[in-house]
Amino acid sequence: MHSYIRENYTMLFDFYELTMGNGYFLSGYRDKISYFDVFYRKNPDNGGYAIACGLEQIIDYINDLRFTEEDIAYLRTKNCFDESFLDYLRTFRFTGDIYAVPEGTPIFPGEPILTVRAPAIEAQFIETFVLLTLNHQSLIATKANRIVRAAEGRAISEFGSRRAQGPGGAILGARASYIAGCTGTACAIADERFGVPATGTMAHSWVLMFDSEYEAFDTYCKLYPTAATLLVDTYNVLNDGIPNAIRAFRANGITKCAVRIDSGDLAYLSRKARKMLDDAGLYDCKIVASNALDEYIIRDLLTQGAKIDAFGVGERLITSKSSPVFGGVYKLAAVEDEHGNIIPKIKISENPEKVTTPHFKKLYRLYERESGMAIADYITVHDEIVDDSKPLTIFDPNYTWKSKTLTDFSAVELQKPIFLGGKQVYRCPSTEEIRSYCAEQMDRQWDEVKRFENPHNYYVDLSPKLWDTKQLMLHKLTK
Amino acid sequence: MHSYIRENYTMLFDFYELTMGNGYFLSGYRDKISYFDVFYRKNPDNGGYAIACGLEQIIDYINDLRFTEEDIAYLRTKNCFDESFLDYLRTFRFTGDIYAVPEGTPIFPGEPILTVRAPAIEAQFIETFVLLTLNHQSLIATKANRIVRAAEGRAISEFGSRRAQGPGGAILGARASYIAGCTGTACAIADERFGVPATGTMAHSWVLMFDSEYEAFDTYCKLYPTAATLLVDTYNVLNDGIPNAIRAFRANGITKCAVRIDSGDLAYLSRKARKMLDDAGLYDCKIVASNALDEYIIRDLLTQGAKIDAFGVGERLITSKSSPVFGGVYKLAAVEDEHGNIIPKIKISENPEKVTTPHFKKLYRLYERESGMAIADYITVHDEIVDDSKPLTIFDPNYTWKSKTLTDFSAVELQKPIFLGGKQVYRCPSTEEIRSYCAEQMDRQWDEVKRFENPHNYYVDLSPKLWDTKQLMLHKLTK
Repeated sequence: MHSYIRENYTMLFDFYELTMGNGYFLSGYRDKISYFDVFYRKNPDNGGYAIACGLEQIIDYINDLRFTEEDIAYLRTKNCFDESFLDYLRTFRFTGDIYAVPEGTPIFPGEPILTVRAPAIEAQFIETFVLLTLNHQSLIATKANRIVRAAEGRAISEFGSRRAQGPGGAILGARASYIAGCTGTACAIADERFGVPATGTMAHSWVLMFDSEYEAFDTYCKLYPTAATLLVDTYNVLNDGIPNAIRAFRANGITKCAVRIDSGDLAYLSRKARKMLDDAGLYDCKIVASNALDEYIIRDLLTQGAKIDAFGVGERLITSKSSPVFGGVYKLAAVEDEHGNIIPKIKISENPEKVTTPHFKKLYRLYERESGMAIADYITVHDEIVDDSKPLTIFDPNYTWKSKTLTDFSAVELQKPIFLGGKQVYRCPSTEEIRSYCAEQMDRQWDEVKRFENPHNYYVDLSPKLWDTKQLMLHKLTK
Repeated sequence: MHSYIRENYTMLFDFYELTMGNGYFLSGYRDKISYFDVFYRKNPDNGGYAIACGLEQIIDYINDLRFTEEDIAYLRTKNCFDESFLDYLRTFRFTGDIYAVPEGTPIFPGEPILTVRAPAIEAQFIETFVLLTLNHQSLIATKANRIVRAAEGRAISEFGSRRAQGPGGAILGARASYIAGCTGTACAIADERFGVPATGTMAHSWVLMFDSEYEAFDTYCKLYPTAATLLVDTYNVLNDGIPNAIRAFRANGITKCAVRIDSGDLAYLSRKARKMLDDAGLYDCKIVASNALDEYIIRDLLTQGAKIDAFGVGERLITSKSSPVFGGVYKLAAVEDEHGNIIPKIKISENPEKVTTPHFKKLYRLYERESGMAIADYITVHDEIVDDSKPLTIFDPNYTWKSKTLTDFSAVELQKPIFLGGKQVYRCPSTEEIRSYCAEQMDRQWDEVKRFENPHNYYVDLSPKLWDTKQLMLHKLTK
């Protein structure tokens, strides 16, 4: 339905992916089956969770993967690739498997969000685009969800395109924001492409273009009698803006309407404006506020009794200003030997948090059966099955004496097969479906996990078999 | 030469631009000539300057502007546009003038970076894309320039694609970083499209893929004997990585080479590594460092005597992490009446910094004639000419008693015509040309402007005629 040219991002890779690729090709590692995990180590804004987002764009990317003759010609100019490798790239496609948690899922540090099983060259090659896409959209979805929750049911509209980091920052950021709970965006292309409801009314320039603020308001009310949101801070909110808005609404018989305040003390101005609007009988006139808002400022405004019905949030949402990097990484977890046996791999580090969890794994979410609330995530070796009809004892992987036995729980596998043997096997849900799923999953997280300050550390535990494998490898490598 | 499909960003607009557009169309303001300025109020990271970047992508955007039938059909579904307006959009093109400072120019708060003169609908419509592009690339160019200067001549390579905010964040961020002085990027597509030299060697996964670190290094040295950069921190830098690297370099007769340290205490490890390499006679082996670097960490590392020859900088550059928003705004400065007279417009605000400077203006940079160093920027009304053969007295627009009389100076107009009557009249310089121009212009700025802490406030002054116009309008409006 929405026809547009999708840019091909095959060439959006870090150069080392092809120096390694050429190396694997020439060293007999071309078909070496490898397993890579995407995981992250720390929630943005010191929060208690993040929200996975971006899978749909990764699927597009994988389906679009192909080098043009121009790409090959460019690569040849770098004088580091063997002709046989360049020839191999001519028909390069992704032939492996990808498993991933659906978009909109709350996720936690240390767990595999996306897992790739593929020949070494292919698995290595897709690293940059997979990371950049999950990192970016998960970052914005997480931030948007925080802001939405701060507003306690009031609408949050995403307004940040002009301050986004590039076109994708704007378009995909609007998508991620909507998935995470915003009610809409100012960004028209995000509506056309992804169905994120776009709205917009007027800038200060509209007001300045006319001879008077009243004339600007009156003209707008005549044009849009059912959607008149007037920007009231071009001159003076309380002396000019609100009185002119009231006059224009009345002159045009409009009662369902709104005013937007974009500067000044939003708590004070909104309270005063509410009183003036109510005194004029405009009880159904909403007050919209904008101007460098985020979850902290919105919470403060509401604490101060601001009379604001909806917020427009721009730069601090679209760049996740207070925490603008989502640190997802892409790490080798295992390879297969010539008999198809899976050999786990581990990256050690002086820094214990940077040690990876080896092996091809499964990720379960454990829910209380009665309440449906999430208790913990549980990572196992790929061939383990969690039987939720029996009690399960989970333990903290760092402080193993901290354990807990679960009964009456249900276990759900979080990663779904997305590609198998290079073929897409996953139906992408619509943006609306993802948004509903995200809201539903967030409802199944306890408030303790969702609060802004000192949130509860959600449990991400390892099965005994996986824990033993990791410990054994660590001890062996550091001996 | 580089053939790729350029995505069309016509629909990347804030929705209010078309609700206003429809309003102008229906209210007789369709052909109202308007002047808009892009300017910004505050340098990123509390620095003393910023660097303009992104004009080339704005030019592409303007040349590509057109609505498809699908776009029109989508707009119709919003039920707020008149059919006559939708029909007008079918042949919508930009027919106005654009003036802008060239990419790579150091810029300062309050001055017009880009000026649009066009019929109201067109001028309003391009707001979002113009802002997002200038904001994003100027942000990254500014950050990159700061990081490059902190490295005091050592190479900075941009490594951040995987943490960028969307594909454009990565690709255009690499472009902006190179323009501002980075020596290259990891991002291959930025090389293919913009000629930003891309390089890359190996990830930890390369090392883990082999049975031993030595085997991984030896294989790599055989494959790339003239470009062997070995990543030495997969296991233990000093116990394993450096000894294995030395052994592999020796076994393959390689002396021009490098090692990369990506974790741990870079100051300590680099000093120790340098000693081990020197002891092995590998004086020409460079040490490259990476891991969450920025200008502050690089400066500290050098102060601590780190032996680092080059840096790879990722997430903190590609997102400008410590200051991730560039606050460029797009404000109405004037309109023309039916006789072609220019009527200045001003946006007032309770906040004095938010008051705009009205009128169609010219922006001059004043240089000392002898040294070639920049003294001040000087904004005039469009019809004023600065005669640099005569003394010129400039004064601070806020503290008018602070004045200075210049002699022996040269005045250069900073804004160049980019589009006139909708036609591109500007030749886009190559990326290399922009990079050279940027370096040359930065050399003409005093160190006082460029330092990180408490930089000198570079003078941006108004001509008496422009100052008077602004004061008169302010007094009239607030009376």
